[in-house]
Amino acid sequence: MTDRAAGLDIALIHHPVLNKVGETIGSAVTNLDLHDIARAARTYGVQRYYVATPYRDQHELIGEIVGHWQHGRGADYNPARKEALSIIRALYGLDDIINEISDRRGQKPLLVATSARSQPNELSYHDLRSYMEKDSSPVLLLFGTAHGLAPEIMERADSFLPPIKGKSAYNHLSVRSAVSIILDRLLSLN
Amino acid sequence: MTDRAAGLDIALIHHPVLNKVGETIGSAVTNLDLHDIARAARTYGVQRYYVATPYRDQHELIGEIVGHWQHGRGADYNPARKEALSIIRALYGLDDIINEISDRRGQKPLLVATSARSQPNELSYHDLRSYMEKDSSPVLLLFGTAHGLAPEIMERADSFLPPIKGKSAYNHLSVRSAVSIILDRLLSLN
Repeated sequence: MTDRAAGLDIALIHHPVLNKVGETIGSAVTNLDLHDIARAARTYGVQRYYVATPYRDQHELIGEIVGHWQHGRGADYNPARKEALSIIRALYGLDDIINEISDRRGQKPLLVATSARSQPNELSYHDLRSYMEKDSSPVLLLFGTAHGLAPEIMERADSFLPPIKGKSAYNHLSVRSAVSIILDRLLSLN
Repeated sequence: MTDRAAGLDIALIHHPVLNKVGETIGSAVTNLDLHDIARAARTYGVQRYYVATPYRDQHELIGEIVGHWQHGRGADYNPARKEALSIIRALYGLDDIINEISDRRGQKPLLVATSARSQPNELSYHDLRSYMEKDSSPVLLLFGTAHGLAPEIMERADSFLPPIKGKSAYNHLSVRSAVSIILDRLLSLN
């Protein structure tokens, strides 16, 4: 059995994503998405948490936030936060992420998209977990901000995870909750 | 089989909790804890999300945030958020929560505390899930803010859930992630 987390990276996409009425937009990077998702990813042994945005000012913002906790006063105050944020990589889009992973791991990742809506060609959580146990080939999980990944990202995915189902018809989890739950389903040890 | 979610309420405790050096403090209510946890709780069919703080100004803050999305401009802008925040109840402490549940459900809840550290008398996630399937008696899950629940709350718990284990020794999930993962472990349908 391979180390399941060894092959897994995650990406939070800020463009292209959908707004409330289904138009393609770029969303703003938020401090909490960086912190909460980095902490969850680090807990489950994810190697890289990619943050994709095409906007240069957003890269500056990410650099300031991560820098504060990596090298600034935050690093002394909270070493655990430093450790979590160290896995963040800000890049300009999905192609840059795929190139970085291909360079680092020697092959292109399997692209697995997530959505709050059912998709054709879904892979169950159990099957993806089993796949990662048997095969350490790179897998990239794609998460959308705002109202979800735009069609041009969804069309590039090799496969999809099913929407998370609780008991109600309500399915408006924050992306921070969705990432946490999905990593637990794929990588939990207890 | 009963409806597992039917008996479950959750509470986020802001006092008494621990700070970084283990002193008992009261923490500040945050906007994101209200939103993210309400959305996760609503997704999994939790009846009530109690927010416990002894500070009157914090109750005013909670009232303003929830009011904006319940009755203010937020209610029209985002009905799904209105629905999630409708399950929040702000109370002054654990005794008030236990009294409210006892009145509403006709018996005191089983108090199940959560922690990032292992405790004696732990109940596995599987066992609590099975218990809730067989018995619709009230269960209250307790979550701490800051560095976790203070001893005076822990001592009152009937039982504890084990710390969430990913593959690394790193265990610094946000409380928002921890609530999401624990609700998924106890109440997921897929």
